[in-house]
Amino acid sequence: MAIVTLLTDSGESDHYVAAIKARIISINPGIRVEDISHQIQPSDIAHAAFVLRAVFRDFPKGTVHLVGVDSTGNRGDSFVALQLEDHFFVGCDNGLFGLISEKTHQQLVELNVINTINTTFPERDIFAPVACKLASGVSITNLGVPMSTFKKMIDRQVKATKKQITGSVIRVDRMGNLITNIQKETFELLSKNKVYTLQFGGEKFRRIHTVYNQADQGECFMVFNSLGLLEIGIYKGNASELLGLGYDSSVNIIFEE
Amino acid sequence: MAIVTLLTDSGESDHYVAAIKARIISINPGIRVEDISHQIQPSDIAHAAFVLRAVFRDFPKGTVHLVGVDSTGNRGDSFVALQLEDHFFVGCDNGLFGLISEKTHQQLVELNVINTINTTFPERDIFAPVACKLASGVSITNLGVPMSTFKKMIDRQVKATKKQITGSVIRVDRMGNLITNIQKETFELLSKNKVYTLQFGGEKFRRIHTVYNQADQGECFMVFNSLGLLEIGIYKGNASELLGLGYDSSVNIIFEE
Amino acid sequence: MAIVTLLTDSGESDHYVAAIKARIISINPGIRVEDISHQIQPSDIAHAAFVLRAVFRDFPKGTVHLVGVDSTGNRGDSFVALQLEDHFFVGCDNGLFGLISEKTHQQLVELNVINTINTTFPERDIFAPVACKLASGVSITNLGVPMSTFKKMIDRQVKATKKQITGSVIRVDRMGNLITNIQKETFELLSKNKVYTLQFGGEKFRRIHTVYNQADQGECFMVFNSLGLLEIGIYKGNASELLGLGYDSSVNIIFEE
Repeated sequence: MAIVTLLTDSGESDHYVAAIKARIISINPGIRVEDISHQIQPSDIAHAAFVLRAVFRDFPKGTVHLVGVDSTGNRGDSFVALQLEDHFFVGCDNGLFGLISEKTHQQLVELNVINTINTTFPERDIFAPVACKLASGVSITNLGVPMSTFKKMIDRQVKATKKQITGSVIRVDRMGNLITNIQKETFELLSKNKVYTLQFGGEKFRRIHTVYNQADQGECFMVFNSLGLLEIGIYKGNASELLGLGYDSSVNIIFEE
Repeated sequence: MAIVTLLTDSGESDHYVAAIKARIISINPGIRVEDISHQIQPSDIAHAAFVLRAVFRDFPKGTVHLVGVDSTGNRGDSFVALQLEDHFFVGCDNGLFGLISEKTHQQLVELNVINTINTTFPERDIFAPVACKLASGVSITNLGVPMSTFKKMIDRQVKATKKQITGSVIRVDRMGNLITNIQKETFELLSKNKVYTLQFGGEKFRRIHTVYNQADQGECFMVFNSLGLLEIGIYKGNASELLGLGYDSSVNIIFEE
Repeated sequence: MAIVTLLTDSGESDHYVAAIKARIISINPGIRVEDISHQIQPSDIAHAAFVLRAVFRDFPKGTVHLVGVDSTGNRGDSFVALQLEDHFFVGCDNGLFGLISEKTHQQLVELNVINTINTTFPERDIFAPVACKLASGVSITNLGVPMSTFKKMIDRQVKATKKQITGSVIRVDRMGNLITNIQKETFELLSKNKVYTLQFGGEKFRRIHTVYNQADQGECFMVFNSLGLLEIGIYKGNASELLGLGYDSSVNIIFEE
């Protein structure tokens, strides 16, 4: 079964999302259309990349992901289709795709677009037909001109030494939980047999939990979440509000010798 | 394949939308149910009509559009089904359907309703079964009593002369873009070989762009959008907030002889 | 056709909901996944129970309802699957399921879970596979260890005497309508041949309407709604804001002898 997912910053109070779906259904009623999210903050590439990176691998291989976030990009950004980790992606080469995987793309084309200049709704007029073709088995190489690479911005990096790991909050979720870019494997490698202290805001802790409810209600929990990333929250509370931390706040783990 | 779309002002934090879908699925599991939007402002017919008008034609002909916005209407408003531009619509004759097309309806009936008076949830109890029947090929004339006309309110009009076009903002979208009722064809007809000035808020501009990113970030763009309507925005900004304009604000295009 | 519904407090700006759907689709692409709501307030069991109770019976019997609200619950809460009124439910035994029906469950098991302790995303990793099995016809008794009962909290009760019914608001819906726990049948039983007065906030009324638009715009309506519950609203207005009432506010019906 062919699946096309949608990820946009269009919200749900306008006609945009329905128009993209209607176009896909009109072209090929056999396609299953699944929403990832339409609540990405307007043009927020970091938000969109976090969500897409977190979920695309949960869909079956071969799924086509139509991405309509900051779709007009900057002048000169082209519309692309790519294959990456056996998934297909269609959207604007505005830097977003460079943030979703460390792997090298398998295929990449700049889309053949007739009259780009006349389209103010590329998600419906350009991306939807291309997504339908990919979902129907058309080869990506038939959809455009091969490119060698796409835009890669440098993402927030973690600094990791024997003495300290310094990361930052890359997403505040709906619950107010603070998801950082500190990976479980980095921590496990560096923390062996060492005493450690977590520092963020004015807080210090000396343990990491394995599940949320090891903390009591109103208490801080720190877990490596289902993405393998350090997540800080307050059990049944809003950590972002209560701790005064948000996107880009720094989080440290200090090791004692 | 039979498609029923849903457009309501019910929001998504209650049971209403799921109840309508469950009723449809229970009656005919073969129907594909697609959301247009459930984020219409409560009882906001203008908002709903804008969204429905903008998107219904993107769905395949024969699609049934169940509209649950201001569904109880005013006293005396009847429940109707109509065929218009080869699409079907089911809802309350509260004026909304009169705003979605200039074409004459093909068929129109007042629904046969038993015990209307006892139903506080017509979307589930009346519209859903009717939508299922239409989607299954039942003739609209079997669903009610023919009516000659439905309620037509006078929509905001554009004043267009050789000297000036005066329109208004009919929708502020999620991005804060200001969509007006000034049509591309009106402009093209009147602007031939003429110098023009766009005026809105305290701003004046002398060009119209063809795509959003002809403006720089933070700059004003004016385009004829995918609906053929003049749209004013600020590239990667919120025009409504930054320009202090909103629904019903007036926009002028002045021609020099 | 197998249906799995989703009810979560995850919101729609993160990857969580899409991850649950992707897991279900990956296991069994033949399953129809339907959203009930993802806009339940974080960990708000009362909100979730109200919505689920209001709608689950509208789905076909045999539907599987995956509930991801307060899924980690309190320490010691187990993950369960149950059959109740010929529907299946999968989630955390945090008290929510005890609020959705007065009927006795037909079957109940504590889920066999390997490595619970290592899962921070039970909706995707535990509930989704179980829901797929139930939807595919696997017997509930194969999914876990039988339990005799699940957690039952005492819900807000209505006090009903020959002189007075005292209930409370159990849900403020998106329109600002106040839905109470006073049932139509209780009222009908006690009000026979009696004059009555409704009291809430500082207001007093002596009638109950049958449909919303028996009130004029801006006026208070009181109806027994599609759930058979007394609902108070302001026609085309927000009763919660205008009357200053909200969740848990009390509503009285006083009978004169």
